[in-house]
Amino acid sequence: MSSIEERLAIIEAKDEIRELTARYCHAVVDGDVEAIIELFCRDGVFRMRNSAFTGHAELRQMYQGGVGAKTHKPFIQNHVIELDGPTEASGRCSVEIRIFQEGTAMTAAGHYLDRYRVEDGRWKLADRFYNAYHLAPWETGWTR
Amino acid sequence: MSSIEERLAIIEAKDEIRELTARYCHAVVDGDVEAIIELFCRDGVFRMRNSAFTGHAELRQMYQGGVGAKTHKPFIQNHVIELDGPTEASGRCSVEIRIFQEGTAMTAAGHYLDRYRVEDGRWKLADRFYNAYHLAPWETGWTR
Amino acid sequence: MSSIEERLAIIEAKDEIRELTARYCHAVVDGDVEAIIELFCRDGVFRMRNSAFTGHAELRQMYQGGVGAKTHKPFIQNHVIELDGPTEASGRCSVEIRIFQEGTAMTAAGHYLDRYRVEDGRWKLADRFYNAYHLAPWETGWTR
Repeated sequence: MSSIEERLAIIEAKDEIRELTARYCHAVVDGDVEAIIELFCRDGVFRMRNSAFTGHAELRQMYQGGVGAKTHKPFIQNHVIELDGPTEASGRCSVEIRIFQEGTAMTAAGHYLDRYRVEDGRWKLADRFYNAYHLAPWETGWTR
Repeated sequence: MSSIEERLAIIEAKDEIRELTARYCHAVVDGDVEAIIELFCRDGVFRMRNSAFTGHAELRQMYQGGVGAKTHKPFIQNHVIELDGPTEASGRCSVEIRIFQEGTAMTAAGHYLDRYRVEDGRWKLADRFYNAYHLAPWETGWTR
Repeated sequence: MSSIEERLAIIEAKDEIRELTARYCHAVVDGDVEAIIELFCRDGVFRMRNSAFTGHAELRQMYQGGVGAKTHKPFIQNHVIELDGPTEASGRCSVEIRIFQEGTAMTAAGHYLDRYRVEDGRWKLADRFYNAYHLAPWETGWTR
């Protein structure tokens, strides 16, 4: 059995990691690219099926070209977190995204497969893989 | 470093505040105006860009004229909470709302900027500002 | 006043129960019927207004005929949990579901009224009642 101190530290870590993903959503809504970048480790990665962006410089470029224009409103839910020691963790969380881009309302959904790591005393995103379910015009909805 | 007792109290406070916002959603869905009012401090405020309702009497009138008819289904997510001592806190959380009003399905989204305070031994809403992203007919979706 | 140990155990139980409902969503998205079943007590029940499925055999049949084809993406939110001793709890949580069935995008929403119980050392679903708000084609939206 773990000590009270160890058990409490696990709960605190999970609480901070859940807020990390919530802060990510708020920063995306605000179009605050520097705030998004600060949530990633210095060598942090954002990956999709056919692309990957590694480190703050690449991430900054990716986010500036994307959500920097306040096009996306993400809503993260269903978070499951597994701690791997005091400074490493992994998680899966679902996301729904409201998008307004080029005059068109769109809806997206998927889930993130995340790696988290403590850097500079804070839990940060070490690796975020976006597994997309669909991205569709709001008016017609998804077709898979 | 805080004591175990202090650290646990912070986690408990955040847990109760998250459930406070969930209870708010359930009370709105149920159209239970008295349950909603009880979640606010006696001098609690609900604010939108161009209006504010202060204290239980004004809040009761506002909610009775609105969600009392079970028109709204809110879904609150992405909650970040900052404690300011043992009885004061602030938070930001996102919300999506399914609405059915005057025969029309509508969708809304935004975020709440909240102040929480302990009153009568429970965390309550001291001030809730609704920052709306959009409110749109479901069929066409948002236009900003 | 409860001891630190008791208070921490309550927080841990609620954390595990929230992840239980998140794991449920992930298993449904993955169409992993055995993973869903393992989240229920051996005599666990899933109920809707006009039907009930009791025990792993009935649940397996129900889920295999339904979400096993990866038709549903549930998003669970607004979770309120009440502990009734160390091995029993109840809860209410909201759910939005993205559905793709027979070539049609649909949207559903409702809330679950849950009973949870510890079995084999883990919190599991003892009884889940789905209170549906609506199930509608995405294109037209809900009509109540």
